[in-house]
Amino acid sequence: MIAPGCQFASDNTAGICPEAWEAMAEANQGFHSSYGDDPFTRKACDQLRDLFETDCDVYFVFTGTAANALALASLCQSYHSVIAHQAAHVETDECGAPEFFSNGSKILLASGEAGKCDVVDVQRLITQRKDLHYPKPKVLSVSQSTEFGTIYQPSELQTLWDGVKGHCVHLHMDGARFANAVASLDASPADITWRSGVEVLCFGGTKMGMAMTEAVVFFNKSLSEDFSWRCKQAGQLNSKMRFASAQWHRLLENGLWLKHARHANELAQSLARGLQAIAGVQLLHEVQANAVFAKLTPEVETRLREAGWKFYQFIGGGARFMCSWKTTQADVDALLADAAGFSV
Amino acid sequence: MIAPGCQFASDNTAGICPEAWEAMAEANQGFHSSYGDDPFTRKACDQLRDLFETDCDVYFVFTGTAANALALASLCQSYHSVIAHQAAHVETDECGAPEFFSNGSKILLASGEAGKCDVVDVQRLITQRKDLHYPKPKVLSVSQSTEFGTIYQPSELQTLWDGVKGHCVHLHMDGARFANAVASLDASPADITWRSGVEVLCFGGTKMGMAMTEAVVFFNKSLSEDFSWRCKQAGQLNSKMRFASAQWHRLLENGLWLKHARHANELAQSLARGLQAIAGVQLLHEVQANAVFAKLTPEVETRLREAGWKFYQFIGGGARFMCSWKTTQADVDALLADAAGFSV
Amino acid sequence: MIAPGCQFASDNTAGICPEAWEAMAEANQGFHSSYGDDPFTRKACDQLRDLFETDCDVYFVFTGTAANALALASLCQSYHSVIAHQAAHVETDECGAPEFFSNGSKILLASGEAGKCDVVDVQRLITQRKDLHYPKPKVLSVSQSTEFGTIYQPSELQTLWDGVKGHCVHLHMDGARFANAVASLDASPADITWRSGVEVLCFGGTKMGMAMTEAVVFFNKSLSEDFSWRCKQAGQLNSKMRFASAQWHRLLENGLWLKHARHANELAQSLARGLQAIAGVQLLHEVQANAVFAKLTPEVETRLREAGWKFYQFIGGGARFMCSWKTTQADVDALLADAAGFSV
Amino acid sequence: MIAPGCQFASDNTAGICPEAWEAMAEANQGFHSSYGDDPFTRKACDQLRDLFETDCDVYFVFTGTAANALALASLCQSYHSVIAHQAAHVETDECGAPEFFSNGSKILLASGEAGKCDVVDVQRLITQRKDLHYPKPKVLSVSQSTEFGTIYQPSELQTLWDGVKGHCVHLHMDGARFANAVASLDASPADITWRSGVEVLCFGGTKMGMAMTEAVVFFNKSLSEDFSWRCKQAGQLNSKMRFASAQWHRLLENGLWLKHARHANELAQSLARGLQAIAGVQLLHEVQANAVFAKLTPEVETRLREAGWKFYQFIGGGARFMCSWKTTQADVDALLADAAGFSV
Repeated sequence: MIAPGCQFASDNTAGICPEAWEAMAEANQGFHSSYGDDPFTRKACDQLRDLFETDCDVYFVFTGTAANALALASLCQSYHSVIAHQAAHVETDECGAPEFFSNGSKILLASGEAGKCDVVDVQRLITQRKDLHYPKPKVLSVSQSTEFGTIYQPSELQTLWDGVKGHCVHLHMDGARFANAVASLDASPADITWRSGVEVLCFGGTKMGMAMTEAVVFFNKSLSEDFSWRCKQAGQLNSKMRFASAQWHRLLENGLWLKHARHANELAQSLARGLQAIAGVQLLHEVQANAVFAKLTPEVETRLREAGWKFYQFIGGGARFMCSWKTTQADVDALLADAAGFSV
Repeated sequence: MIAPGCQFASDNTAGICPEAWEAMAEANQGFHSSYGDDPFTRKACDQLRDLFETDCDVYFVFTGTAANALALASLCQSYHSVIAHQAAHVETDECGAPEFFSNGSKILLASGEAGKCDVVDVQRLITQRKDLHYPKPKVLSVSQSTEFGTIYQPSELQTLWDGVKGHCVHLHMDGARFANAVASLDASPADITWRSGVEVLCFGGTKMGMAMTEAVVFFNKSLSEDFSWRCKQAGQLNSKMRFASAQWHRLLENGLWLKHARHANELAQSLARGLQAIAGVQLLHEVQANAVFAKLTPEVETRLREAGWKFYQFIGGGARFMCSWKTTQADVDALLADAAGFSV
Repeated sequence: MIAPGCQFASDNTAGICPEAWEAMAEANQGFHSSYGDDPFTRKACDQLRDLFETDCDVYFVFTGTAANALALASLCQSYHSVIAHQAAHVETDECGAPEFFSNGSKILLASGEAGKCDVVDVQRLITQRKDLHYPKPKVLSVSQSTEFGTIYQPSELQTLWDGVKGHCVHLHMDGARFANAVASLDASPADITWRSGVEVLCFGGTKMGMAMTEAVVFFNKSLSEDFSWRCKQAGQLNSKMRFASAQWHRLLENGLWLKHARHANELAQSLARGLQAIAGVQLLHEVQANAVFAKLTPEVETRLREAGWKFYQFIGGGARFMCSWKTTQADVDALLADAAGFSV
Repeated sequence: MIAPGCQFASDNTAGICPEAWEAMAEANQGFHSSYGDDPFTRKACDQLRDLFETDCDVYFVFTGTAANALALASLCQSYHSVIAHQAAHVETDECGAPEFFSNGSKILLASGEAGKCDVVDVQRLITQRKDLHYPKPKVLSVSQSTEFGTIYQPSELQTLWDGVKGHCVHLHMDGARFANAVASLDASPADITWRSGVEVLCFGGTKMGMAMTEAVVFFNKSLSEDFSWRCKQAGQLNSKMRFASAQWHRLLENGLWLKHARHANELAQSLARGLQAIAGVQLLHEVQANAVFAKLTPEVETRLREAGWKFYQFIGGGARFMCSWKTTQADVDALLADAAGFSV
C-alpha cells in the first residue's frame, strides 16, 4: 500500500473510486462540447432532480469551499451575516472564502452540542442586534454531517428550522459529507433537505469518491438567478465539465453513492468500537457518519504518529480519523492493532 | 467518433490525452496526503523550475480564468488598472473575473494588429491619466499565443516591454496556449518569459490535453507572497491535487507537452492551407499556433453548420477552427472536403 | 476675491451657499440624535418625497462617487454589467468606484452625441453577448445633465428608455447636476425621473451649493432593501447627519435649489455668448446647463493659464468652464475680457 | 436647550465646536481648488506632521468607519486576518466595513480586561493556525481610548507590542477618541503612536468637535502607497476638502483639540463621581477618558429613560454616558440630580 499512514487523515486522501474512474474514461471518448453542454452533464442534473424529487437547479464546481462560498454569496449581500456553528467548515477551514465571495459578510458563530447549532443560540444571534451598525443576519448554514461526524436527526433539523424560519433567513446546508448523512439516516434526500427548509445544498462529490467536483443544488430556484454567471466569474466553470458530471452520473445510478458512504460509515463504527476497547481511549463524539473523534493517551498518540499514522488534532486534544470508500477492514484492524499495542 | 462536429469548436472539446490519463491512473493508486503535499506535486513543481531554468513559485488551479484572475489580483489593487489587448481573454471571455478577484480593477483596452498590444497604444493608456480620479495602470497582460492564434515573436515582446517597463507596471502572460507558442517559436521557455520581462505566467494545461489544471508560475517571487492562501480562499485549492499535478509531471517528461502542441499547430497549418485553396475563403490572421480564423462564404458557413460542424463566429464575420492534440489529419480532411464541396 | 482663477475650474470650487450655511448654523444648536434620527433629516426626506410626488426612499451620502457606486451596486451583482456613456463620470472620474462597490461589475461604454447614450448602441451592448463568459447587462446609467453640459430632453430620454426597457435592465440617473437640468428643462422632477423610467436618482447637493452631501433617491423601493446597511458598511453613514440634511431642508424650501441652478445656467449662457464672439473660439457642445466647452486658440488658452485662470482640458483640445451659484456676471466679464484681449 | 436627553448618548450628538465652525466660515470665503489642493489642507497636514514629530502621510476621510476600514485594507489582503478586541468598534459597530473594504479579511477576537487586548490571547490568535485553510493574521488593531472608555497606558501598549511585533503583524490604532486619550495620558502623541509601534492611526475629528472628518495618519509611509486612489475609489475623496481640513487646521492650533478633550474627560470624571455617590449605582470601568459606564438600578435606569435621558445599554446591563466638548457641568448636574432623585 502506498502511503498507508495518511489514509485516515482525511476522506480526501483516497483517490477516485472505480466507478467514477470508469465514468471519466467513458467521458474521455471522442469530443464533447465544452462548459457543460454535453450529455453527461444533462443526465447528471436530471438524476439529481430525480433523487431530490423536485425541479431543482444544479451546478457543478470544483471544491467544497467554492460550493459553500458561492452558495452563501447568492443568499446574502456584503452587509449581511451568516450564522454557522463555531466549528463549521465555512468558519474554520475555508480561509475566509465566504467573506471573500460575498464581499464582506460576517460569519456569526453559534454554539451547540456535537457540532450542531443550538436553536436558542441561533435565535440570540438573529435578534441581538437590529441596528444598522451590525451586519443583518440573512442565512443559517448547517453542516450535514457536521464537522464532528455527527448528524442532525430530522427532528433536530425541524426544531432548529422551526425556531428560525420566521426570521427571514435562508437555510443553507453544507453537505460535503451529505452522502454519509443520508446513508446513516436512511432517509429520503428530499425529506432531509428542501422538505425540511433547506434552500441550497452543497452536495459533496470529492469525499464520496470523486475528483474535483461538488454539486450546488438550489431547491429555491429564485435564489439561483444568473448563478452560472457567478460560477464563471469565480473561475469555477469547468470547460471539460463532462469529467465532473460523468462521475455524478455514474455514482447516482443504482445507489452507488450510498453504497460507498455506507461502507465508510460502517468502518468508522468498527474503528470506534475498537478504539473504545483500548484502555484510556475515549470517544469524543457519537460516531454517526464516517468520522471518529477520540481522545488518545499521549503515549498512544505519540507512538501512532511515530509509526507513520497521520491524523488531525482537534481542539481539546482529540484525534480525528476519517474513513472513506477505500478504507478496508484490514486498514482499520492495522490501526487498531497499533493503537492497542502502544497502549500497553 | 462521438460528436465529431464540435472537435474544431475549441481545443477543450478534446478530452484528456493518453499520457495524462495514465498519469492520473498512477496517482489513483493508494492514498496520498491532500492539498498538494504529495510526490506528484513536488515533482511537477520541480520540473517546471527546471523547464524555466529558474527558482520560480508554482501553483496549480483549476481553470484558466482562475489562473489569470488570481495572478492579476496579486499584481494590483482594486484602484489600479490592467492593460490588455481589446480581444484578450481576460476582457472578452472571463465574465469579469479579473475585476472580481481584484475587487474592482479596471481593464484598459489596447489596440494592436493580430491580437498583439501595440506599444504606442499601451504607452498612451499608461500616460493618459495621472490624476487620482482614474485607476492607475499597474499591469500589462499579454497573451501568448493570442486570441487570434498569432504569436509575439521574441523581438516583438522585447519591443513592447522595452517601451513599457520604465512605467512601473508588471508584466503578466496569459499562456492558456503557451505550449502552442513555444512549439511554434521553437524557443526556450525561459527566454520568452522571465528573460523577456514576464513576472507571472499562467501556463495552460487544459488546452494541451489535461483536465482541470492550469499552472500559475511566478518568476518574480516577491509577488507570490501568501499566494497559496489566496488560492485557498478563492476555492482553487485542490484537495486531491495529485490528479492535477500528476498530469503535469507526465507531460513535462521528455517534451511530451511540446509534441502535442506541435501536432496541433501542424494540423492548423494543414487546415489553413486547405481552406485557402477554397474559392472565396480568406484567412483572417496568420496561422502561427493551433487556431485558424477564416472568412468563409455565407454559403459555405451555413452549409458547414447544417452538416453539424461547430465553430465560433468572431467579430468581422470570421469563423474560428481550433486544432488539438486529438485532431487527426483525417478530421482536417473531412472538414476540408465538406467546405470544398459546399463552395462549389 | 480669493483665488479667482479656479472659480471656473469646477462647480465645486465655490463653497457653501448662504442659505445652506444658515441651515448648518441652525443645525448646530443644541444636541441632536445621531445617524439621521433628527428632525432635519426627517423633514428633508419628506420634502424630497413631495418634490418627486411619490413615496420614494431617500439616503444621504457624502460624495457623488459614493452615491453612484452604492446605487449601482444595489442594481447589479458582480457578474453583471452597467452600460454608460463613454464620457460618463462613472467611467471616467470615479477611479473604478462602481467596479469596487459592486465587487467587479464591468462598465460597458455606449457612444452617442453630446454625452447622451445612443439607443441603438445601447441595444447593441445589451444584445451582443448572451453567453455566460461575459457580464450580463443589468443597468443603464444616464447622466442628467451630461458630462458635456448637455441635457436629455424628455423625449430623448423617453426614446432611449423605450428602446431599452424590454431588456430587463434598471435605469439609474447620475444627477450630480440634476438641479441644473431641471432648471434648464423647466420640467417637473417627477416627469423626468420616475415617470420616465428612472428607478434610482443620485441627486447632487455639492454642485448646487452644499457641502459633503448627495441624496440617493430610490423610486423603485424594492431596490433599496437594506440600503442603509449598505451605506453604513461603506463608511457613508454620517453620524452628524443633520449637517447634511439641514442643507437639503433649506434649499428645497421655496425653490431655492432651482434659483441657484438657474443662476449658474444663465451665467454659462452669458459666458458662451461671450466666447463665441471671440475670433477663433468655437463652442464644442450646446450649452444647456452650467458648463461651457470651448475650443480656444492655442494663444488664448496659453495666456489665460498664464494669467491664472484654471480650467480642465478635455479630449479634443477643448476647455471646460463651469459656472456655479457663486459665479457673478463680473467674474464672467473678467474672464471674457482676458480671453478677448489675448485673442487679438 | 434643544433635545437635552440625547446629549450623553454619544459624543457625536454635540455639533461643531465654535472654533471649527469659525474655521469652516473662513474656508467658505471665495473659491478654492477642489480635492485638497488648497492651503487649508496643506497646512493641516503639516500641522499633523509637526504634532507627531515625523514625516507622516495624512489623508482626510468622512467617517471613523471609513478611516478604520481603509487603513486596515491597506495593511492586509483578503486572505489575512485582523486581530482586535472583542468589543472593538471595528468588530461591533462598523457593519462589516473592514471585511468589505479588505474584500473578506476576517476579524479575530481577542479577549482582555477593560477593552484592552490581552497579549497572551493575541499571541494565541496569531499562532493557533499556521495552515492555509485559515486567514493569516496580519494586523493588530487597538483602540485608544477603548470602547469602554479606558486607556492603554504607554507601558501596557509597550508590553502588548513587544509580545506581538516579532510575528510580522502591523499595528493599527483606532483613535476615534485619540484626543481624549492624549489629554488623559498627558503624553506626547509621537510617544504613544509610532514610537510605540503604531504604523497607522485613525485620528478622530468628529468626536472632538468637528463635522464629517477623520484623519488617517500613516507613520509607516510604505503602507500608504496610492492611498489617495484608494480613498477616491471608496467615495471618500472630499471635493470641498477645505471644509474638513480647515477644522483640523484650527483645532490643532494652540492645543485647542486638547482643551476640548480635557474638558470632556473632566466632566466624565465629575459624572462618575456623582454616579458613584448614588446608592446602588456601580461603575463598570475605570473612567479614563470621556465615557462613563455604570450599572444603574433598574428603577433609576427606567425612570431616567422616562425622563427623556438617552443612553446606550451595553452588554451586562451597563449604561453608557458620553461627555463631549459641549457638555457642561450644569448638564452633568442635571443628570445626576435626576439619577439621585430616582434612586430614593
